[in-house]
Parts: sequence; structure tokens; C-alpha cells
Amino acid sequence: MSRIVRFHETGGPQVLKIEDVDVPTPKAGEVQIRAKALGLNRAEVMFRTGQYVTQPAFPAILGYEVAGVIEAIGASVEGFAIGDKVSVVPCFMLGDYGLHGELVNAPAFGVVKHPENLSWEEAAATWMMFVTAYGALVDIAKTEPGDVVLIRAASSSVGLAAIQIVNMLGGVSIALTRGGSKRNTLLAAGAQHVIATEEQDLVAEVMKITDGKGARIAFDPVGGPEVPKILAALSYLGIFFQYGALDTGDVPVPVMSLLGKDLTIRGYQLFEITKDSARLEQAKRFVVDGLASGALKPVIAKTFKLNEIVEAHRFMESNAQVGKIVVIV
Amino acid sequence: MSRIVRFHETGGPQVLKIEDVDVPTPKAGEVQIRAKALGLNRAEVMFRTGQYVTQPAFPAILGYEVAGVIEAIGASVEGFAIGDKVSVVPCFMLGDYGLHGELVNAPAFGVVKHPENLSWEEAAATWMMFVTAYGALVDIAKTEPGDVVLIRAASSSVGLAAIQIVNMLGGVSIALTRGGSKRNTLLAAGAQHVIATEEQDLVAEVMKITDGKGARIAFDPVGGPEVPKILAALSYLGIFFQYGALDTGDVPVPVMSLLGKDLTIRGYQLFEITKDSARLEQAKRFVVDGLASGALKPVIAKTFKLNEIVEAHRFMESNAQVGKIVVIV
Repeated sequence: MSRIVRFHETGGPQVLKIEDVDVPTPKAGEVQIRAKALGLNRAEVMFRTGQYVTQPAFPAILGYEVAGVIEAIGASVEGFAIGDKVSVVPCFMLGDYGLHGELVNAPAFGVVKHPENLSWEEAAATWMMFVTAYGALVDIAKTEPGDVVLIRAASSSVGLAAIQIVNMLGGVSIALTRGGSKRNTLLAAGAQHVIATEEQDLVAEVMKITDGKGARIAFDPVGGPEVPKILAALSYLGIFFQYGALDTGDVPVPVMSLLGKDLTIRGYQLFEITKDSARLEQAKRFVVDGLASGALKPVIAKTFKLNEIVEAHRFMESNAQVGKIVVIV
Repeated sequence: MSRIVRFHETGGPQVLKIEDVDVPTPKAGEVQIRAKALGLNRAEVMFRTGQYVTQPAFPAILGYEVAGVIEAIGASVEGFAIGDKVSVVPCFMLGDYGLHGELVNAPAFGVVKHPENLSWEEAAATWMMFVTAYGALVDIAKTEPGDVVLIRAASSSVGLAAIQIVNMLGGVSIALTRGGSKRNTLLAAGAQHVIATEEQDLVAEVMKITDGKGARIAFDPVGGPEVPKILAALSYLGIFFQYGALDTGDVPVPVMSLLGKDLTIRGYQLFEITKDSARLEQAKRFVVDGLASGALKPVIAKTFKLNEIVEAHRFMESNAQVGKIVVIV
């Protein structure tokens, strides 16, 4: 028996229960992990409320990120031993696996022996944030020194990872945040510029920073009616990544921006990277190297205990956090 | 003195005048062409009405395509001689040059000695249609055998060029047309499938043809409220090209299509290809090879005389044409 986070209906944080469940022995291609820390993701909030790209089947399990110790190994799994300290790169869809519990099975495909210098909390916080940002900014957009990157919802864990990756590659990181209250925190987190979009003219500020050229890349988990302004701040051949759907309404795309600048609007989820073993290996190597050198470092907003899972989700929904919310098991 | 098409205000076809103008000697990098035939483009209608990506300065000249004989050569131009039979790949913006007249200057950069087997009318009709379709389908999307391509406004000259290019590459060409009246014409023009979008269920038809996978590429000069249906008919990692703005309203992009299938929405104008000398050379070679082999053949809808330029524009606006409208000088 293991205590597992489950829910039996979609809804607010209170639908989450911690239930005693018999965890099956790991199947072929799976490992079983005794959890030490869990990472929370916005995707889990959307899954819990029925707004995610996949729908829950009840009783539903959830959770993309865990760090812990291997307790059992399924058939056909190579390269791991019982007792290994590991964490998991999200490489499945919610509904297929759920890693938030004391003892969980995970696909070995995404399991990593993370660098020794990471704490359990940091290891649980690492993969979604860095691989998501890596996939768009490095694998697809091939960010180069001097490239200007607009990072929306910059105080989210993925936003902070994007700031670190852009800086590491010699690019110019511009953090977008709604009000000015997180400005100093974002500067301290490494953002080279911060634009408070409710207080400043986004397009004018970006043009000032880029000598009128515009930014080459935008990285946005929100979408919705603010997108046209971000597109107006892009350069010729600019790329706009939408990697989340915090606003589930249609994205209005002004055709003259799209056409006049030969823009690319790219839907992107990290599974594009993590389900392709060659691209996943490159991602792991990039992140492990960055963590080892100190250029990348997961930012933890706040930690909770497992029996505070409802409070942890509530904190996620408050949008007050800067960085990753972690649950210690 | 030369008779040149000009206009002094934006408006309907009737604003076009044929006026006697002193044509300056060609500047460095330009050639002067004695026109034999002119190709008409939708872009010129939008420029004339003030809806194009650039605005006219009056008196305004216009015209992207001409075929004729070189009559004079500016400084720094190599590879051409007076008397050469040439046509012009659009490689400038309307407003900078205008090729609709009896004697016109053109940037040598885009001038081509076209294959001998083309008539003047065909030479004037070739470049916009084939290079526009080539740039999106070959240079950017790298269409491969078996790729399914949705071609909207398929009876336009660029749409017909796209059908020919997709077929030449071993892809599956699906022509989209509003009513069923052009179905047989499009099948005769080479479309492997025709979907009349006002009479058939676009998504269901595409899924039937593709065994539920969806099309990899869509190629659309219209935009507007029909786009979500086309996006719904695309496959995972599908690419939607918007290469014109017949509908100037915002393109509504459903975020769950964009995100769930990691789609790319790409604004595209052929100038992306034609202003880059390496890409332009590859485009010219592809089109010349295709014309020589017979795989590509410009389709001419109707010809007019120069003094019928108003009628020619009116015919363009009727949307009754299948293929290119050409003016014989």
C-alpha cells in the first residue's frame, strides 16, 4: 500500500485526496520510485479542472515530476539498479502515469540519474522547467548569442528556466510580467530587462532595447488577447512559441503582422522533445551540463508536505509564486 | 516616352490610367525591358485599394511581373546583353518598382533568361506562381513523397502551381474550393482530390483521405474565420502557411489545435526567398527544371490588351478565373 494523490471528480484544489492504494509491480519498461520530493506543474491544475489536452478517467492520478530512490525495476529496463537516486523527465501524458504519491511507477525512458549536487527538492523541480524551455529555445529556435527573447509569465518555473538558458547562451532575456511587483525579483533571477506589461508600452520598450528591430523569439504559456502586442514586438522572421493555454480562448493573430514579418507561431509541448529518444538525450545532456556548471539552477518558490497537497495546489493558483512549488514526501 | 500603368488615388479598377511617362535610364543594378507580356497579381489589386503591406505614393506605378526584351542595361549588371529575352522574378516591394508598362526598369537581381519553350505570355505568368508555391512547399516545408497538402483558393495561379509542385514531388494534392463549380477544372488541372468547402465537411473528408492522420501542410492565401477548420484537418506537427491576406481580419487560432498538435502557423511572402540570392538561385533552378521537363506549366486564365488594364483588374476581382491573367503589350 502507498499513499497516492488522487481525485474522483474535476474541480478546485479540494477534490484532491490522499488515498491508500496498492501500487502494482512495475511493468516492462517501468521503474518503481520511492518518492522524496514532487514537483508541481500548472498542467496538473488544468488536468484537475478538466481543461488539459487530455481528460482524467476516475479515480484519476496525476503528477509529472518526482525525485526519489529506485525500489523495483520492470523487465527490459537497462542502466538502472535498485537504490539509484533518480528523477523523471516528463515524457508521458497525464492520465497515462501520475507521479504524485509515496511509491509510484514511471516509464524508464524518462528516468535520469541526476547530478549529485542537486538536493531532492531541486531534482524534483528540474526537468519540466528546463526541458520545456530548452526544447523551444534551443532544440527548435536555436537561440544564438545576441538573440533577444521575450519571456511571458517570467516568474513561473519555466519562465525562470528560460531566463537562465537565454543568459547561458549569450542571448538577451526580457522578462514580461503584468504588474511591477515582481520586477526586482526577476532582475535578481537574471532577467536582463523586465517589462511590466500593464504599466509600460510593451512594443515601445522592446523596440528601444532592440534598436527598432524587435525580438527574435517570444515564449508564452498564456496566449489570448495580449498576443497581438507580443507579435508586434517581434522582428522579421520572429518566432512566437505558445507552450501553455492559461487563456483557453482563441489566439487572435493580426494577419499583417504574420504576413508582413513572415512570422512563425508555434504550438509547443515538451513531449515533442521527450518522446524522441535522440532529442531527449540531447536535452538531458544540455540540462545536466548546465546544472553541473552552475549556469542553470532550479528555483524553488515554496515547499509543502504531502498531506498539504490541497494547499500546494491553492498556492499554485494564487500566482504569487516565483519558481517551482515542491512537495516533500 | 513610354505608356505606363499608373494611379493617382486608391480605389476600384477605374483608378488605373495608362499614361505617357519619361522612363529614366536604368540605374546601377537595373535593366530596362521592352515589355511583351505582363502578369497580374492579387497583390496589385490590394496595393491599388490601399490594403497591401506597403502603401502607394502617388502617382503610383505597379506590377510584379513582365516578360520582354532587354533594351538597356545599368552599371554593375553582369550576365545580360541587349536583346536578351527575359522575365522577372518578383524580388521587390510594390512601390519600389512597377513593371506594368511598355518600357520598364527592373532590378537585375530577379531577371531570368527563361526557357526557350515558354511563350511571352507563359514567361510573364511563371515566376510569381511557381516561386511563391516553391518557397513554402519546398524551401521551407520540404514536401516529401506522400505528404498531404491542402491548397486553398486552388484555382488561383499560385494554387495551380502548388498542385503541380506537390504532384511533381510525389505528394498528395488536395484542392480546396468554395463551391463545387470548379471541381472538374481542378481535377483536370492535376488536383488528386477536390473538397468543396461550402458543400462538404472539410475535416471529415481530409481524415478519410489520410486515414485519420490529417494533412501535413496547408497553403492558404485567404485566412479569416475558416482557418480553424483547416487547422483541425492538419496532422501532428502540421504546418499552415498563410501567404496572402484576402481576409484582412485577425486569424482566430484555437489554442488546443495549436498546442495539442504542436502546429506551426507561418506567415510567408515570396520575398523571403527572392531577396536571398542563394535561395533565389535554388528557386530559379527548381522552376526552370520543372518547366523544361514539363512537370510545371503555367496556366493562363485569360489574356487582355494593355489598354484593357481596367477590365483585366475587374476580371481579377470577379474570382471567376482559373489561373493567371496576362496582359499582352
